[in-house]
Amino acid sequence: MDDLKSLIREVPDFPKEGILFYDVTTLLKDVQGLGEVLKRLTEPFEGLDIHKVIGIESRGFIFAPTVAQRIGAGFVPVRKPGKLPAGTISASYDLEYGQDELEIHKDAINVGENVLIIDDLIATGGTAAATVELVRRLGGNVIAAAFLVELEFLNGRQKLDGVDIFSILQY
Amino acid sequence: MDDLKSLIREVPDFPKEGILFYDVTTLLKDVQGLGEVLKRLTEPFEGLDIHKVIGIESRGFIFAPTVAQRIGAGFVPVRKPGKLPAGTISASYDLEYGQDELEIHKDAINVGENVLIIDDLIATGGTAAATVELVRRLGGNVIAAAFLVELEFLNGRQKLDGVDIFSILQY
Repeated sequence: MDDLKSLIREVPDFPKEGILFYDVTTLLKDVQGLGEVLKRLTEPFEGLDIHKVIGIESRGFIFAPTVAQRIGAGFVPVRKPGKLPAGTISASYDLEYGQDELEIHKDAINVGENVLIIDDLIATGGTAAATVELVRRLGGNVIAAAFLVELEFLNGRQKLDGVDIFSILQY
Repeated sequence: MDDLKSLIREVPDFPKEGILFYDVTTLLKDVQGLGEVLKRLTEPFEGLDIHKVIGIESRGFIFAPTVAQRIGAGFVPVRKPGKLPAGTISASYDLEYGQDELEIHKDAINVGENVLIIDDLIATGGTAAATVELVRRLGGNVIAAAFLVELEFLNGRQKLDGVDIFSILQY
């Protein structure tokens, strides 16, 4: 399957006017498309010594557990504030107007563990950078971050210093 | 692995006083635990003619894509209002105080398709029943619903008439 992009639906003016939204649901409902995405997100990390795969709420949850299971790692969610029930640490990131936060359980990553971060999309890189910060504060090593879609014109990579970045589709 | 329950963390008074919350993150971060959960959620449906596997936002997203890929189906998200970018239908369900809604893309399920619904937990069954309603309104057949945890004392099964229900762990 060479043309995953043809399975992505482009929705103009969502979530607001002037934004072109790349809707991956049309790709994921396709059996071949789903299989190909999960394969391509896993392959770069096979054979590496990775202990935990993080999915960022909520579309990162779609991909991270499969990748974790295939490479022999555990799955860890990074969530919006108030969703994780036990002890957490949090990191903030900038929105267009204001800030938001992400949280991780304090006991989700052990000191010295190698961590892969997964999300559906990297745009400005704010949520990914906050996740890198959370992992490092818990003593984990961020080995890489992987995304289904990268919006290259927003330069999110620049916010992820020292992290290997993989993306399957670039716009 | 016989004792998945020992990997689930019980958190008293979350999200509010008097509620005992079953935190599955401690199970999912464990490599063997994650593998076992994904295996047990898949096995009952291997060999069945299922076209789509639905994950209910957001913890259903953790399990549904892996099951979908293993049984040769596509993955479809059911989400909270305003998250899905293209044409949707919605169904409401009762909360303790008030109501909330779930949405599905109109083109997510084709008429006559067989559908499996997955979520992490069935409690009162409100979100699962709303999801069954969405699938049926699109002309799909709900073959079964599967959950990691079932809170039996809340009788959620009773809300899912005509649906085969599977749960891995019961409380």
